[in-house]
Amino acid sequence: MKREFLPIESADDPRIAAYRNIRERDLVGRQGRFVAEGRVVLNVLFSTSRFDAESVFLRENRVSGLGDLIERIPRNVPVYTASAAVMDEIAGFEIHRGILAIGRKPETSGEALLDTLPDEALVVALSGISNHDNVGSIFRNAASFGAAAVLLTDDCCDPLYRKAIRVSVGATLKVPFARFSDTAALAAALQDRDYPILALSPRGEIDIADVRRSPRHALLLGSEGHGLSDEDMTRLPTARIAMAPDFDSLNVAAASAIALHRLWRKD
Amino acid sequence: MKREFLPIESADDPRIAAYRNIRERDLVGRQGRFVAEGRVVLNVLFSTSRFDAESVFLRENRVSGLGDLIERIPRNVPVYTASAAVMDEIAGFEIHRGILAIGRKPETSGEALLDTLPDEALVVALSGISNHDNVGSIFRNAASFGAAAVLLTDDCCDPLYRKAIRVSVGATLKVPFARFSDTAALAAALQDRDYPILALSPRGEIDIADVRRSPRHALLLGSEGHGLSDEDMTRLPTARIAMAPDFDSLNVAAASAIALHRLWRKD
Repeated sequence: MKREFLPIESADDPRIAAYRNIRERDLVGRQGRFVAEGRVVLNVLFSTSRFDAESVFLRENRVSGLGDLIERIPRNVPVYTASAAVMDEIAGFEIHRGILAIGRKPETSGEALLDTLPDEALVVALSGISNHDNVGSIFRNAASFGAAAVLLTDDCCDPLYRKAIRVSVGATLKVPFARFSDTAALAAALQDRDYPILALSPRGEIDIADVRRSPRHALLLGSEGHGLSDEDMTRLPTARIAMAPDFDSLNVAAASAIALHRLWRKD
Repeated sequence: MKREFLPIESADDPRIAAYRNIRERDLVGRQGRFVAEGRVVLNVLFSTSRFDAESVFLRENRVSGLGDLIERIPRNVPVYTASAAVMDEIAGFEIHRGILAIGRKPETSGEALLDTLPDEALVVALSGISNHDNVGSIFRNAASFGAAAVLLTDDCCDPLYRKAIRVSVGATLKVPFARFSDTAALAAALQDRDYPILALSPRGEIDIADVRRSPRHALLLGSEGHGLSDEDMTRLPTARIAMAPDFDSLNVAAASAIALHRLWRKD
């Protein structure tokens, strides 16, 4: 059966209301929905069962080149098409790639997510990371090193914010994540399930290069500005990345790449 | 002797012409000059002898809190001050931090730079990295792991572009760099000086975790889009970062962090 496309002729068409002024609406939230952009990200979106998509919106001259992607879109998801001019008018800026979708955010509790993980798992835990680039980059690293889940405190920014998805190259749609009220609740849930937690900090005790890999690890990363609290540092085992003495300033995403590469078991 | 400040009352004052419309002028070049922004970056600028500064420009209400920085500014460098309104009008956008300087770009040949390096040195070589975030992040990682120099092919973007400096947290002012016409010339200069080159690529032969550290290394990184050419890959020893099989996509800056952490000798 041939795929049906629904042409949109006017920026006022109510069927594409969810795509209107994407950029500003990122900032005010979109009631449990998110915007996915670009071929790579949509391929991830339609390769996982974690998300429902509401619709897809393509620039009409892109359709013919997207055969593989279009086959992945479930039949019940409408695929709208429009000219570049109409699409840009709706979105409120130039959509270079001409490929958009609206997905629905899942609601998973952190405890429930942890209970689905296999016996051997690498988990990334984020405390107070409020920069979308950093959250996106950390998810990308987490996916690269096979992390089973990312746990976030409530003061972390949204991994499904448009920029975070883009920077992560779709990894925020790939790696399951869930939130906890704060670092203490997050750490307690991990400890209840026998995850050894390693808190990464320039003040950490063990050199990350000397940490023995174990079947499960939880790597805890704090915000760039303030890092982990003294309380967290006292309560949890800590590790550091040794650096040159005169420029002690690694970005948190770079630090996550180094630590995950050390902790990941590729077998 | 008390430091003299030169108040600027009007956006048309010719003495601060170099600060005008900073954002746009980044794109068209600034005749061998660059803009440094923020306390951390200016501290780096005035801690190295590699750059001459032409002037400093401060928001008047910042001056009293910048004692340490102001002491570092050579006496022959004029320090202009202005109100936030005048400063923003000159720069063409809101200068949050109220701290700017104009520096002069050094002209160092790649060969000359290599000849100044110590016997034991870690060198980072970049081929075709055209994204300012990536160049800035790679310099930040290079500084964190004590790299002695960064070599760039001519098609890499400018490490002294405003955004690259900012993302690098000043590392592009700290780690000496120089350019080569292309990867072949760059590799030849390194090989002439007995640097073992390691080209990093997902197609690399050796796992970076298995590379033996040696007193000198040159780590070669290719562009995110195309990576290193087949010719380079055939000609040079290559290493890869092992990754999860279903998400093989590490950002080049993250890859540099992992590789530099492996190659750096902290002794």
